[in-house]
Amino acid sequence: MKAYSLTEENIKDYDKKYNLHSWSSQGNLNPLVVTKAEGIYFWDFQGNKYFDMSSQLVNSNIGHGNKKVIEAIKQQADRLTYTAPSYAVDVRSELAKRIIELAPDNMGKVFFTLGGADANENAIKMARMYTGRQKIFSRYRSYHGSTMGAGNLTGEPRRYASEPGIPGFIKFFDPYIYRAGIEFESEEAASKFYVDKLREQVIYEGPENVAAIVMESITGSNGVIIPPKGYMKGVRAICDEFGIIMICDEVMAGFGRTGEYFAINNFGVKPDIISFAKGITCGYIPLGGVIVDKKIADYFDDKTLMCGLTYSGHPMACAAGCATLDVYEEEGLLENAKAMGKILGEELEKLKAKHPSVGDVRYIGLFSAIELVKDKETREPLVSYGKDPGKVMGTIIGLLKNKGFSTYSHENMIIVAPPLIIKEEELKEALGIMDEVLDYVDKLIA
Amino acid sequence: MKAYSLTEENIKDYDKKYNLHSWSSQGNLNPLVVTKAEGIYFWDFQGNKYFDMSSQLVNSNIGHGNKKVIEAIKQQADRLTYTAPSYAVDVRSELAKRIIELAPDNMGKVFFTLGGADANENAIKMARMYTGRQKIFSRYRSYHGSTMGAGNLTGEPRRYASEPGIPGFIKFFDPYIYRAGIEFESEEAASKFYVDKLREQVIYEGPENVAAIVMESITGSNGVIIPPKGYMKGVRAICDEFGIIMICDEVMAGFGRTGEYFAINNFGVKPDIISFAKGITCGYIPLGGVIVDKKIADYFDDKTLMCGLTYSGHPMACAAGCATLDVYEEEGLLENAKAMGKILGEELEKLKAKHPSVGDVRYIGLFSAIELVKDKETREPLVSYGKDPGKVMGTIIGLLKNKGFSTYSHENMIIVAPPLIIKEEELKEALGIMDEVLDYVDKLIA
Repeated sequence: MKAYSLTEENIKDYDKKYNLHSWSSQGNLNPLVVTKAEGIYFWDFQGNKYFDMSSQLVNSNIGHGNKKVIEAIKQQADRLTYTAPSYAVDVRSELAKRIIELAPDNMGKVFFTLGGADANENAIKMARMYTGRQKIFSRYRSYHGSTMGAGNLTGEPRRYASEPGIPGFIKFFDPYIYRAGIEFESEEAASKFYVDKLREQVIYEGPENVAAIVMESITGSNGVIIPPKGYMKGVRAICDEFGIIMICDEVMAGFGRTGEYFAINNFGVKPDIISFAKGITCGYIPLGGVIVDKKIADYFDDKTLMCGLTYSGHPMACAAGCATLDVYEEEGLLENAKAMGKILGEELEKLKAKHPSVGDVRYIGLFSAIELVKDKETREPLVSYGKDPGKVMGTIIGLLKNKGFSTYSHENMIIVAPPLIIKEEELKEALGIMDEVLDYVDKLIA
Repeated sequence: MKAYSLTEENIKDYDKKYNLHSWSSQGNLNPLVVTKAEGIYFWDFQGNKYFDMSSQLVNSNIGHGNKKVIEAIKQQADRLTYTAPSYAVDVRSELAKRIIELAPDNMGKVFFTLGGADANENAIKMARMYTGRQKIFSRYRSYHGSTMGAGNLTGEPRRYASEPGIPGFIKFFDPYIYRAGIEFESEEAASKFYVDKLREQVIYEGPENVAAIVMESITGSNGVIIPPKGYMKGVRAICDEFGIIMICDEVMAGFGRTGEYFAINNFGVKPDIISFAKGITCGYIPLGGVIVDKKIADYFDDKTLMCGLTYSGHPMACAAGCATLDVYEEEGLLENAKAMGKILGEELEKLKAKHPSVGDVRYIGLFSAIELVKDKETREPLVSYGKDPGKVMGTIIGLLKNKGFSTYSHENMIIVAPPLIIKEEELKEALGIMDEVLDYVDKLIA
């Protein structure tokens, strides 16, 4: 391969000259050249090593360079790389079966896609087909992808690029207790308030028009917002009352991230549709999909499923998916996510107690966010919504990276979500770097 | 891998029980179990061999089991399977450079996606961002993908599942001469008529509101509709006159299918944006993308590109893409597509002359369609638009498949688009099967 003999300068030059990067203005980009990744680490061309404390884009759950998955990819490459989705293929059959066996017991069938965006696109299409209704509810603090349908589901500013929007996409507020503007007596009281408001909004939109309520089971990029006790059950009850399809976006939170195969399992609720991607193959080969419950699966026995894509159930991706599921199981990664998540939570609470700049920490399993504020009392965010002219957050992320802690930020929040294979001493060492950088942030606000 | 020990019955059972197939009602599916593919052939579990005369979904341009691409996949699997799109990676840099070098000389940069649908999604988002305008023109006989944006671009019935539609998506009629309902003196006269009508429609929509005109360079699934002489230049002139972005969807027609790297090269026109997918990796690993010209690339130097996806420029896909481009070049596949395309055209004309059921044949390179009619004079389609209650077309495709000729149909048309590595004797042998089956169709309409 010609590319393997490129110098660092070549790689940067070609990248700058010919490649467009996601969510960026391109003029001042100076991307790190990544050459190697192994376990919870990756390396740049200079040989610098980084803790991958965001699992790239919260998808490298099993870590990098896993031999079992690499071997499965190579074997499948020799057997059969591709066949159209109309055929049956061993690895596709096997993976569909295993996903349904892992999913909540009401689930029936899987429709495979390429990633999270098209998973969500197909989920809402199916909900519209099944219900014959048009309106789709989703939340303001959410990210569901950037294609038009997924972009219109999305609540945060990345939605604007998909607007003027699709008629019938309705937004509601999530139970973001830290900034609710109300003091609730308990989590249950907060849940009651938000569920009642949602029910009121559904009634004002006409429940008979509402096809689906779409939520990340745990809001991801927008700051690991964990639903309070009873919230998900309350939403489920609204869906049941009005015949609305409950869609849980598990693209980021699914496949072990919270210590469960599906994050919704933490709340004792069964959705009608689950969308997934990231953790099913952990980035080794792109794959996503939609899991539908039995009644929806049955509906399409004699109705045409008006969904399709060239690479639905790609054999290479399915082989990687089967091997990835083996890794979760054989390496006990859900158990590790729970055990390490406990330590992560304790360490984050210490950081919050110590640093004036840390307003809130939120965590479940190995999925967490640190919310930075100018003032702990007023909770004023370190940067305003949608605005960071001084590139304060970029500076903080850059400082972390220079010290070997790689992650990303969203608004005033830093995501901490390492691969599920991380060990206690590694976690503590990485959080030591975070501690140092938070000292700097403390000085910024002093 | 557990899946490798499944029986044919297991594979079918699990598929039927757990997997949703594209564009189908699921109840009566009985999918072939595919186990092997090599060159222009694939095999089912029983060992039956099929000519892959549609290159699966018109994407397996280099054929199956190409050792060079398989080796590149294996090598890359050992080196680096994934890193986030914000980093620079050798294979991503190299592939972006090579695509720009192959593209028309006005092109500047590539944004990588996963497939054709999200390529088109991002193309229209970029056109809207660059122009600050909202309206998007596309054609009735077209397929651009099934996510909401791509689905609304699409003109044919698969669009309905993405409706109620996105405001500002406007449809116009394509120059489908065979069913124009007008006798034109020449191709140029037809082009003038259709271009004038399009210009009139643009004016009635308000040119200052129109961001883009989106066309497949050659309409693919809707029947290989080839623009008449002068048509594409006429559309280009409208775009130039009103500052509208010309987007060519080359997902199916690109990468050698017509004997050119980009089908638009056949018409001496340079679009502003090209979307691509399929042929860039020929299905070995999913990959798609958007090529933008230099002025659009420059625009995003200081404006934020509001597009992004987890697997943009996936290293495994880029490695497969680099190797696939090597194969086109080293095996002289564009030349072969031209040479074999000439024979294909001659053979199709013979079939048309011989069979009363063949109303029209259209071909360019190794991209062709046979249009079936009840009556050659009236041109009445063998099946009505959007309706085939007697499953006539399904029966014909099934007959072809039973005789070892695998392809698919759309409306009353059969796609013939074999891998670009096909040899003359193979092509003639396969078309012999088509000849036999057309005898059956002749009897149907007699």
